[in-house]
Amino acid sequence: MPALEKVSSNRVSTGYLTKYKFPSSSLSLPTQFNLFVPSSASSSSPVPVLFYLAGLTCNEDTGAQKGGFLNKAGEEGIAVVFPDTSPRGAGVEGEDDDWQLGTGAGFYLNATSEKWKKHYNMYDLIVKELPEVLKEANLGLDFSKVSIMGHSMGGHGAMSIYLKNPGQYKSASAFAPACNPSKTPWGINAFTNYLHTVTRSSPPSEWLQYDSTHLLQNFEAEAHLLVDVGTEDDFLKKGQLEPKALESVGKEGVEVRLQDGFDHSYYFISTFAPEHVAYHAKFLKA
Amino acid sequence: MPALEKVSSNRVSTGYLTKYKFPSSSLSLPTQFNLFVPSSASSSSPVPVLFYLAGLTCNEDTGAQKGGFLNKAGEEGIAVVFPDTSPRGAGVEGEDDDWQLGTGAGFYLNATSEKWKKHYNMYDLIVKELPEVLKEANLGLDFSKVSIMGHSMGGHGAMSIYLKNPGQYKSASAFAPACNPSKTPWGINAFTNYLHTVTRSSPPSEWLQYDSTHLLQNFEAEAHLLVDVGTEDDFLKKGQLEPKALESVGKEGVEVRLQDGFDHSYYFISTFAPEHVAYHAKFLKA
Repeated sequence: MPALEKVSSNRVSTGYLTKYKFPSSSLSLPTQFNLFVPSSASSSSPVPVLFYLAGLTCNEDTGAQKGGFLNKAGEEGIAVVFPDTSPRGAGVEGEDDDWQLGTGAGFYLNATSEKWKKHYNMYDLIVKELPEVLKEANLGLDFSKVSIMGHSMGGHGAMSIYLKNPGQYKSASAFAPACNPSKTPWGINAFTNYLHTVTRSSPPSEWLQYDSTHLLQNFEAEAHLLVDVGTEDDFLKKGQLEPKALESVGKEGVEVRLQDGFDHSYYFISTFAPEHVAYHAKFLKA
Repeated sequence: MPALEKVSSNRVSTGYLTKYKFPSSSLSLPTQFNLFVPSSASSSSPVPVLFYLAGLTCNEDTGAQKGGFLNKAGEEGIAVVFPDTSPRGAGVEGEDDDWQLGTGAGFYLNATSEKWKKHYNMYDLIVKELPEVLKEANLGLDFSKVSIMGHSMGGHGAMSIYLKNPGQYKSASAFAPACNPSKTPWGINAFTNYLHTVTRSSPPSEWLQYDSTHLLQNFEAEAHLLVDVGTEDDFLKKGQLEPKALESVGKEGVEVRLQDGFDHSYYFISTFAPEHVAYHAKFLKA
């Protein structure tokens, strides 16, 4: 297991936010993440863990700096992990040309197309490698109590990861997520490029494995999923988010809320951040 | 009175954050600021106003995005004004060469030296022009109830403005402020450049009029001043802040708190932001 290199550390809320770097085997590149750990955490009294997946163009700092999660997380005694949104410096042709693909746009999947598959494996990083690396580092985190949330592309990531791994996460929540990416522009663009699609059904099964609406239709466990979308979100209006698709599955335990007047920005996130942390605390501390 | 041009608007907390632009007569240039107004505000039921002055290198967005003030301000029903930290595009030779002087470093004073005096008049902007422009715009703000806070250079600004204008502000607070700038490097550099110093006493009286420690020694009104400084703040260690100078004045109503382990960053500010808003609410809503 690779050693975590400490990049920086800031006292915040009831603990510390530390930025770490390590050579990721999922990405075949070094990656950075921020980790908030409340001071109450110790190996004899480990704390629950909440992942926050950021959206397009963002990185490991965005949610930590602008999300407004940390005071509530500190009060609840919950650690928060802020991963990056993609590999950095993979050197794939064109990866820096389009804010919707490549750098800053990993889409939380494992790429299978020749061009992208060596480095663009954010799914494995989030679901498998980061938890292993963090367990190994012995930081007072309880990986039997993990939840996951995210924004926009990261909302898609949080929901699809939650729904693909029943039992691994206690709950999921999302701000303005792409709910049905196999049918909406960001997702179609990402899946077309990242995934080596053999089948020609529409949408292909390789796409549906990362589509939260599809996954929810087939999710047999009890769901704990909270989704907030602002009514003035331009990406909602442009058909990128489609929360109604998710809601129309009619699954118990899935709450989709339209928040009047809010947009796609971190001002929206920071308004409801404490509520989302409290939502997860209910399941993480049950 | 110049018209306010709306640049952007975001729903946040219990209201809206709106970015405005207007031609400032103090700066002889257009300037931008952000204004949070809780939805409860109206001309028949105006709300108190809290100014937040940001530090070196920052602008009108920094405190709004990273400060963590807005949920508490919304809950308390208080408006928050986030001005810029300097004129922009003044064209003064060298103004973009040094992060401690010129652009992003207006020091909340009125410049008197030939080189800077046309544009660098942030004191008049904050103390006189912005309140007048906002009153005129009829946005449901109660300018009989105003308080002021800030960070670092902006903490110096908030405290010195509060202490120079007894009765105009109900209270002041600061995160990691430069408390004794006539004797510390940032202040000496700023005052040497911005102020046309005639007297040769040490420090000159032109400097002392912006030095909070000096102003507090001569402040005869009842003080309501809260100061937080982190013990791991590098600028504290480098002698830029000198909270002990302020504390040693021994003025009742001035609380200087050293916060264990915190540094100079917005992680520090966001941790104590709700407490500062609550502190001001006590006086603004008395």
